[in-house]
Amino acid sequence: MTHAALNTRFTQRFQLTTPIALAPMALATGGALAAACAQAGALGLVGGGYGDLAWTQREYALAHDLLKDDTASHARLGCGFITWKLDENAEALDWVLTQKPCAIMLSFGDPRPYAERIAQAGAQLICQVQRLDQVPHALEAGASVIVAQGGEAGGHGANALEGRSTFTLVPEIADYLAAHSPDTLLLAAGGVADGRGLAAALMLGADGALVGSRLWATTESLAAAGAKTQATHTNGDGTARSMVFDILRRKNWPAPYDFRAIRNDLHRALESNVAALQTNPDAARADYDAGVKAGDFTRAHATVGEAVGLIADIPAAQTVIARITQQAQRLLGK
Amino acid sequence: MTHAALNTRFTQRFQLTTPIALAPMALATGGALAAACAQAGALGLVGGGYGDLAWTQREYALAHDLLKDDTASHARLGCGFITWKLDENAEALDWVLTQKPCAIMLSFGDPRPYAERIAQAGAQLICQVQRLDQVPHALEAGASVIVAQGGEAGGHGANALEGRSTFTLVPEIADYLAAHSPDTLLLAAGGVADGRGLAAALMLGADGALVGSRLWATTESLAAAGAKTQATHTNGDGTARSMVFDILRRKNWPAPYDFRAIRNDLHRALESNVAALQTNPDAARADYDAGVKAGDFTRAHATVGEAVGLIADIPAAQTVIARITQQAQRLLGK
Repeated sequence: MTHAALNTRFTQRFQLTTPIALAPMALATGGALAAACAQAGALGLVGGGYGDLAWTQREYALAHDLLKDDTASHARLGCGFITWKLDENAEALDWVLTQKPCAIMLSFGDPRPYAERIAQAGAQLICQVQRLDQVPHALEAGASVIVAQGGEAGGHGANALEGRSTFTLVPEIADYLAAHSPDTLLLAAGGVADGRGLAAALMLGADGALVGSRLWATTESLAAAGAKTQATHTNGDGTARSMVFDILRRKNWPAPYDFRAIRNDLHRALESNVAALQTNPDAARADYDAGVKAGDFTRAHATVGEAVGLIADIPAAQTVIARITQQAQRLLGK
Repeated sequence: MTHAALNTRFTQRFQLTTPIALAPMALATGGALAAACAQAGALGLVGGGYGDLAWTQREYALAHDLLKDDTASHARLGCGFITWKLDENAEALDWVLTQKPCAIMLSFGDPRPYAERIAQAGAQLICQVQRLDQVPHALEAGASVIVAQGGEAGGHGANALEGRSTFTLVPEIADYLAAHSPDTLLLAAGGVADGRGLAAALMLGADGALVGSRLWATTESLAAAGAKTQATHTNGDGTARSMVFDILRRKNWPAPYDFRAIRNDLHRALESNVAALQTNPDAARADYDAGVKAGDFTRAHATVGEAVGLIADIPAAQTVIARITQQAQRLLGK
């Protein structure tokens, strides 16, 4: 039974019991996490990420299997992709569309080339944006939902000069949608890790929230155990947004995107001279690769946002969803 | 009559009728604006800024005169200073303390050297922080109120690498205060420009909000008329945080602070090579100075934060306070 305050246009449109979407975090949001969130009443978006077909097939099929006897939860499954990677190869998207996902979320690029096939497959289109000026393309693509992602989010987002924060981006996009496309829903992303954040997102004008870091730090998440442990010991001052880890990981992200993760020793050593790192990355990459191999998170990256300061344990996803929901209910029911 | 949801520990401690504090914006928050906010039931903090004695005396005395027959509003007057400038010259602080301010707000530096004289003058100490790790010094100084300032704020704040966002900093500091100093109050700063922002701040765990940009864009504000006009035409994508304007203005701010303002043509021309600007600033400074002289805000700076996207008019401060209060009441009363 959903509390009235949490019964939003988003829960209604997607038949959810709480206005939460699982962020489709590349390599972390596998099928088990997506299935657990869907069973807990949230939207379960598998992290299709860079569009690797084999990974997406395996994890989406796992979620499908876990929910095959639970029609209501199965109807809450979807998948997210990095849009500019689809421009290179969209076979994972095309495969997912044969699986009748309820939604496809696209982030970081122009969604318009994919809108028609997503609509034809009967899936709702969710478009994540980092700036107000990205909203018109999302609306042209027929987005059912806009996700307003602030720079406090973990992983990829817009860089400091071009990006926005959740606190101002959400109400500004809410006003824009009210004027231009009132049936398009809005989720807040970046910084939402507890019921306070969900309640605040609703006050700011969102219909719900997309939750990343808090659901990354769960038993079902595919993130490395050492990264999760490091996250529970890191406060919100301890992350940074930069190009450092994308350079170390040989990812060629286009402007204006960069990457927030825990600001570990290797990041600190490299962050003040990113231009030099870009010109001559080999030694730092070797150091990073050795860190990844050894599970040494003073060198390997742990992909969380500023909300890591609100994360102190690694429970099951169902527990996280229940905590957020109940705390928001208490705050909004006052 | 304050709505129950807006009757917080902050309104009670300072005898306010709405949980709003006026940001003490250097050169913009003069006596007329502070007096208007105090009369509207908010905390009216004059912008002592860099600690110029003559400016502070003139503006504080103006507020005093405007409220001399209104005891309740007069008791809501205070003053804010840039802490690291007080380290060079604290005479403006010492003068204000003779005027029986209800509060002194200190930002950007170590407040501890000023704590004793502020307490002896009977004023409450309000300490603004940009990171969780700055809170312990504020508590050592005996802060009555912590202001958690996110990087979305206009004017000075912590830079992108070191700073935080309002959305995550507020709940994390709320948790810290609950554990370590439960009688210390908390305000959210950065991004609050309407009732949605105030309601969200309260949901995140704050006792109220410090409002800058929205009160900067009022008739009483001392900001240049051309800057205010430019702000009403700028959306939230149109500001940036960098060292550019501090270099152009010959301000020697210490790390980790930089400055958010409208990202005008001159800023765009300089932002990609701040190191070169720092080494050889003369030509750019001449261009900037000419822009200031001409009131040309494609070159001069307009000091607003990301919340500028929520600002479309230049009303009286009283109107702004009433709008924010009433909208928050409606949202929280649902």
